[in-house]
Amino acid sequence: MHAPHSELAQRVADVCDRVRARRPRVHCITNTVAQSFTANALLALGAVPSMTVSPEEVGTFVAHADALLVNLGTLDAEGRTACEIAIEEAGKAGTPWVLDPVFVDRSQPRAAFARSLVARQPRAIRLNGVEFATLAGADASEEIIARFAREHRCVVGLTGVADIVCDGERRAAIANGDALMAKVTAMGCAASALVAACLAVDNDAWCATVAGLTILGVAGEAAASRAQGPGSFAVAIIDALSSLDRKTLSDRARVK
Amino acid sequence: MHAPHSELAQRVADVCDRVRARRPRVHCITNTVAQSFTANALLALGAVPSMTVSPEEVGTFVAHADALLVNLGTLDAEGRTACEIAIEEAGKAGTPWVLDPVFVDRSQPRAAFARSLVARQPRAIRLNGVEFATLAGADASEEIIARFAREHRCVVGLTGVADIVCDGERRAAIANGDALMAKVTAMGCAASALVAACLAVDNDAWCATVAGLTILGVAGEAAASRAQGPGSFAVAIIDALSSLDRKTLSDRARVK
Amino acid sequence: MHAPHSELAQRVADVCDRVRARRPRVHCITNTVAQSFTANALLALGAVPSMTVSPEEVGTFVAHADALLVNLGTLDAEGRTACEIAIEEAGKAGTPWVLDPVFVDRSQPRAAFARSLVARQPRAIRLNGVEFATLAGADASEEIIARFAREHRCVVGLTGVADIVCDGERRAAIANGDALMAKVTAMGCAASALVAACLAVDNDAWCATVAGLTILGVAGEAAASRAQGPGSFAVAIIDALSSLDRKTLSDRARVK
Repeated sequence: MHAPHSELAQRVADVCDRVRARRPRVHCITNTVAQSFTANALLALGAVPSMTVSPEEVGTFVAHADALLVNLGTLDAEGRTACEIAIEEAGKAGTPWVLDPVFVDRSQPRAAFARSLVARQPRAIRLNGVEFATLAGADASEEIIARFAREHRCVVGLTGVADIVCDGERRAAIANGDALMAKVTAMGCAASALVAACLAVDNDAWCATVAGLTILGVAGEAAASRAQGPGSFAVAIIDALSSLDRKTLSDRARVK
Repeated sequence: MHAPHSELAQRVADVCDRVRARRPRVHCITNTVAQSFTANALLALGAVPSMTVSPEEVGTFVAHADALLVNLGTLDAEGRTACEIAIEEAGKAGTPWVLDPVFVDRSQPRAAFARSLVARQPRAIRLNGVEFATLAGADASEEIIARFAREHRCVVGLTGVADIVCDGERRAAIANGDALMAKVTAMGCAASALVAACLAVDNDAWCATVAGLTILGVAGEAAASRAQGPGSFAVAIIDALSSLDRKTLSDRARVK
Repeated sequence: MHAPHSELAQRVADVCDRVRARRPRVHCITNTVAQSFTANALLALGAVPSMTVSPEEVGTFVAHADALLVNLGTLDAEGRTACEIAIEEAGKAGTPWVLDPVFVDRSQPRAAFARSLVARQPRAIRLNGVEFATLAGADASEEIIARFAREHRCVVGLTGVADIVCDGERRAAIANGDALMAKVTAMGCAASALVAACLAVDNDAWCATVAGLTILGVAGEAAASRAQGPGSFAVAIIDALSSLDRKTLSDRARVK
């Protein structure tokens, strides 16, 4: 094992321990398809989710939260207002937030809204390759990702066959995960929520993003070994998130 | 076994049997995080859930329902209007309804709205200790709970490590349940829905509330014995609700 | 085995293979209770679901979809506008769409809205007996179903103990399925979504509807053999949808 590899894996394990110990509150503005799975993933890791999107209430919830997730799935006008309020509140309190521009490649107005949010300094953006290409205006190469991260002063967490995490200077590649993860709805949304939980306990946003994605990837591998298909996999990954410990994480993290 | 203990357990079993036999319709105004799990819990017990929150439709649904659940999670302005219409309709028809003031401790406007609904005579209020303290303006003691129940002429179902059910005169403590119940999203919301189903078949709201919470607690214990974490627990508790019979309930209910 | 029986079963297997190979995009306007289960059912079969209901976005999503599902559960005013836009867009592009008039028997305004949508030529309508009787104004008999299908030039997929699929000329009866399917929320909604996925790969709407309902019925039987109640059944049917192959479908389809 390389030293850097091992060091980063230890850091991932530290972040996981801290989430379990501190139980951060993570407020999620997320689509109705993903809410239940996302809440259960956060609970399994030890975080405390809340999910209201009502413009009148979202400010108070964010003010008392330790991190915020803004996911653009199934948003209507009221939901967009809720995002604005939530981000404003997070900015005031210095609360870290994650942007998940889900399906931004499918809708022009959503892409425009996502771009306006990128300008408001999310600590991290979690997305897939097609979504990145839409936001960045160019296909995701090592160089393009780094430039985008520098330009917007945020961490890019690009998930796919391998996950890439880049803050413009540092770059990690995470080889964990399982093909079944792409067969369960809301898996990407849950990944973003876990990143938010990790940001709540680690000021280094790059480390936190690496931790969130590695944790889910390792849990996914554990789940795959017990699953008989995507239905039982979705159940088993929640179990795995709940029982994940230092040793399993350190042993199985394939991050460098 | 004490006679009163055993008597109450028999009553719980009676209520469960009646839900299975009569298949009451339970209309749920509940948050989008909880809808699917709540609907499956009701179906597993033998009730028939409906979930629309559209102000134009909710009145008709409530008019044809045997009980109503009003849960304040993720409510927007339209949702609050739906609550008003639903409670009005339930009042006209004498249909019992349950208030679940979820996360009322996190949001001032939600607390104010919840207080206005308490004044409209829910048959039962199901909540946790922090939510109760917010509504009652004082920490939950035996005396404070009883006074609150008398003042608002409703049953208080306070869930936690042990559940307390009080109508101002009578008080039950339910020792059933499992720690995993706190690790699954919407478990409290489902508890409130089961209480609504029980209210539909028992005019004694105190007995119905005891029944709903005991049924879920016993199912939770059965599920915990088969679960490997919160994911498989959430699945197993639905199975357990579905197969719960008189004998298991009578044997395992720890209520007095 | 009768030749026609066997021939139709082969056709069902063909449609299933084509969904897996072509991965059609299915846009679903469906109720929040059903979204997650529906998305996972579509993914398990090999289709790609999207679920936004925002009026500003739904047009673009439908324009890039291969089939559309319009389910009337939990619709508000905005949701109805989204339906109108989506159906308009589907009409322009010649994209097949399925109407699921869920609980239309419970709400007059919903019934009126459903009737207006029937007039806009869904390729198929998937519903149960009570819902059909509400729309047709008469109980579902062989004759009434055939007339309704002819009059509205659509396929009727009537689900119940046995499923009936009729386009006015041809009639199929599907004997697959399991009683547990009625104990899981959103099973009917998922059936409609699978029909939409099949319509995307087969221009013969009658065959596609037979295929969608048979696939779910066969998966339900496989799931029932492994389930311990409705909770584990809901998980197992997703696994079964994912692993369903030609041979299982051909062997187990009981359709004629």
